[in-house]
Amino acid sequence: MTPEQAYEEMIRLSREEAVLGSCLELLEWDEEVCMPRNAVEHRSEQRALLAGLVHDRETDPRYEELLDAVEGSVLVDDPQSPIAVNVREIRRAFDKERHIPRRLAEEWARVTAMAQQSWAEARKNDDYPSFAPWLDRIFALARERADAVGFEGVRYDALLDDYEPGMTTDRVSALFTDLQAELVPLVAAVRSAPAAPRVVLARDFPVERQKLFVEAAANALGFDRHGGRLDLAHHPFCTQIGPGDTRIALRYDPRDVTQGFFSMMHELGHALYDQGLDTAHYGTPMGDAASLGLHESQSRMWENQVGRSEGFWLHFYPRLRSTFHESLNDVAMETFRREVNLVEPGPIRVYADEVTYNLHITIRFELELALVSGDLRAADLPGAWNELYERHLGVRPASDSEGCLQDIHWADGLIGYFPTYTLGNVYCAQLFAAADRAIGPLEDAFARGEFEPLREWLREHVHRHGMRWSVPELIERATGTPPDPSFLVESLTRRYGESY
Amino acid sequence: MTPEQAYEEMIRLSREEAVLGSCLELLEWDEEVCMPRNAVEHRSEQRALLAGLVHDRETDPRYEELLDAVEGSVLVDDPQSPIAVNVREIRRAFDKERHIPRRLAEEWARVTAMAQQSWAEARKNDDYPSFAPWLDRIFALARERADAVGFEGVRYDALLDDYEPGMTTDRVSALFTDLQAELVPLVAAVRSAPAAPRVVLARDFPVERQKLFVEAAANALGFDRHGGRLDLAHHPFCTQIGPGDTRIALRYDPRDVTQGFFSMMHELGHALYDQGLDTAHYGTPMGDAASLGLHESQSRMWENQVGRSEGFWLHFYPRLRSTFHESLNDVAMETFRREVNLVEPGPIRVYADEVTYNLHITIRFELELALVSGDLRAADLPGAWNELYERHLGVRPASDSEGCLQDIHWADGLIGYFPTYTLGNVYCAQLFAAADRAIGPLEDAFARGEFEPLREWLREHVHRHGMRWSVPELIERATGTPPDPSFLVESLTRRYGESY
Repeated sequence: MTPEQAYEEMIRLSREEAVLGSCLELLEWDEEVCMPRNAVEHRSEQRALLAGLVHDRETDPRYEELLDAVEGSVLVDDPQSPIAVNVREIRRAFDKERHIPRRLAEEWARVTAMAQQSWAEARKNDDYPSFAPWLDRIFALARERADAVGFEGVRYDALLDDYEPGMTTDRVSALFTDLQAELVPLVAAVRSAPAAPRVVLARDFPVERQKLFVEAAANALGFDRHGGRLDLAHHPFCTQIGPGDTRIALRYDPRDVTQGFFSMMHELGHALYDQGLDTAHYGTPMGDAASLGLHESQSRMWENQVGRSEGFWLHFYPRLRSTFHESLNDVAMETFRREVNLVEPGPIRVYADEVTYNLHITIRFELELALVSGDLRAADLPGAWNELYERHLGVRPASDSEGCLQDIHWADGLIGYFPTYTLGNVYCAQLFAAADRAIGPLEDAFARGEFEPLREWLREHVHRHGMRWSVPELIERATGTPPDPSFLVESLTRRYGESY
Repeated sequence: MTPEQAYEEMIRLSREEAVLGSCLELLEWDEEVCMPRNAVEHRSEQRALLAGLVHDRETDPRYEELLDAVEGSVLVDDPQSPIAVNVREIRRAFDKERHIPRRLAEEWARVTAMAQQSWAEARKNDDYPSFAPWLDRIFALARERADAVGFEGVRYDALLDDYEPGMTTDRVSALFTDLQAELVPLVAAVRSAPAAPRVVLARDFPVERQKLFVEAAANALGFDRHGGRLDLAHHPFCTQIGPGDTRIALRYDPRDVTQGFFSMMHELGHALYDQGLDTAHYGTPMGDAASLGLHESQSRMWENQVGRSEGFWLHFYPRLRSTFHESLNDVAMETFRREVNLVEPGPIRVYADEVTYNLHITIRFELELALVSGDLRAADLPGAWNELYERHLGVRPASDSEGCLQDIHWADGLIGYFPTYTLGNVYCAQLFAAADRAIGPLEDAFARGEFEPLREWLREHVHRHGMRWSVPELIERATGTPPDPSFLVESLTRRYGESY
């Protein structure tokens, strides 16, 4: 087999895996958006079958032979060519999968399924001790998994790499330590300021009208409606079924227009990334998002850097006010903006504002590291959790249900995942600052209703490159410096420091 | 391998094939109801991949070995036991697939794909001659297919058997000849009667209100809303994604409330059959519909026997009138009923009323037989078509587009399919008459808003049996006599003969 033939066959396998995976995406989308409730059992059979077929392809032993035939050939001479990138990333993924013994993969699936049930019960009954043994088992399996796939520095590197390829524990630690040092005093300052009363968020915003407004805004911001949809679901999400098919699902609150609108802004950022990938490379690493953190940077950019800015609301607030005239006629833009920029430390991550959010993540990262290393046992988690919340955010969870039981991630086996949320915020602020330097002032463009310049800058410097570079390299190429939390600190201090 | 093990493995394969096929159903449903238009290309890749995986399982050579191990064992001693039925039907389907050479299957797929494009062009431009060579090729392939799978009587038997298992050309010919002899004079009588002016069908019926009315009616008739959905699509259809997931899609006309309503009645009949199948046997012949004709009998029953009856509208018309008060307040129920029971011979099958519909089918059957046998060449089709329309329906198509180019079926390779529509009407009238004798008068129940007795009778005598018996045997068991067109003639004459 020539290297060319081997490469072609490898890409065929990779695309087939992607197309099959995209059928699974549709099943999952449909389950959240359309499926009648009596179909639950059949849907789980459909998903299990397709997931098995995807897994068979991920671990297809032919990859070994095909990779051997291409690696070292002239085809991969230029490490930044699409061929070299695809070969590098297919090798990385394949080696990882292949080193995980079947027994471990099966136990992982079984234990996380049961642990999720235990977690749901424990959270409902505020009964952490019943869940603690599962957490110990999951972290033990995570250690096994890390040892199986291997790592250079510490075990946590191997887990982090599942979500943020090439990122290391040391780099995250350094970033997060810097960030924490800046954010803790900022949050403390905010807490000492008197709280402003809320006026906007408990009025009438008919859902049908919210949908029309949100859809029109998504279109104006550049969501390709012929290549996607907006729907309703219990939890907001965005999924890419395939090229030309990116779907956003949202939830609306009839008393609070900001919930649905900012969910749209967040999911829109994900959608624009997906719609900006190079479709010619669909189904291969060159056509795939570079990391969860980079994906999150795009959602946070539209949600926070764009959607909470003054320029943005100079354009959109008159439209919002005329759409919901009865409820907003007496509300000045500045009042509205203050409310969508409120900072209020609380115990729950998913309700957190832009400033305090990152401390929820740095706390989880610190605890995860200790749980993986074995320095912290599950039985001692609630104490450690509550102490860190008190120290960094100045709040103490009233129960474990609103403390260390609030997130499903660990029960689901997602260890090494949390840091990607704050890495996303770090990348986001740095990319936005670079775009602003290059083509700004962006807020002036937003005020004129112009969002294409930012969108095209992101497409050019981020979206279209797929997995061509590691994320740190992509960030450095796009912004001139490696990932650096000072842009996030500067952005938050500038935007929130003065208010308090 | 013991017969028990072989049977278990066979059922596992069969269920896996069904679950995979059900993923394909969802892709197809989504394409009609949800998919954004830029996803067309990716969707065709998804469908092709899953269709290939389904085909691999249909023709899995392990079936041969498994069937050999079960056939002749004590497991199949009782021919009406679920095991014997499943083995018999899996054997039948497998033998058919396995006798079709790969070359023929591939050519079939390629030729029908191109023929459909040619058909669409030819129909648009009223250019039959450009399509005629494709029709000759398709009928030649159909002959090859029939020869490959084999038949006892004539070639057409093998084709018919794809859609109506066990039905023979002779039986259809006899049924249709009897039917035609009765219907042609009935239609002639209708044509000579003066046409009544239409009053209802060009008023305002807001679509949102139609949807609410139609959905409430579907619920009242017994559609399980927790096991299905109602949606919008360009063409009405019903699909079963799996147990607990039967989906109806409808189209509404804002000027004609009957279009959407009767489409719902038709698709509801299909849906009730699917929802009445035995879910314990899902993915095996015992849990599958017995034939296309029997499926159609259920849709026609709710559309025509139930939905055009006086009893039905005694219950529903007051509700319809209060929902669309502005448009129906001055319309008496008898006026409304007369309009939904109008008989008007025309050239187009899909617009045909209940009486003339069957003559559209008997004409196609006659022509199909001649095209398969070779007695008729594609070049001579338009003349033969128009002559039969004139003779049986008293109308002459103004063009080939509204004549022999109107249906996609032949271009799609669906040869032997048309008869199932009229077989459905024959079964339907016979089943309805039997139910009426057993638990009637049904119209009195309808007038009281009671539809459960009919629904339960159908579940008991038709739905729950899956493929246990051949359709003629099922009809005889349910009604006391083999399939007999006189029930249809009697029903049409009674209901339509007196009006003219």
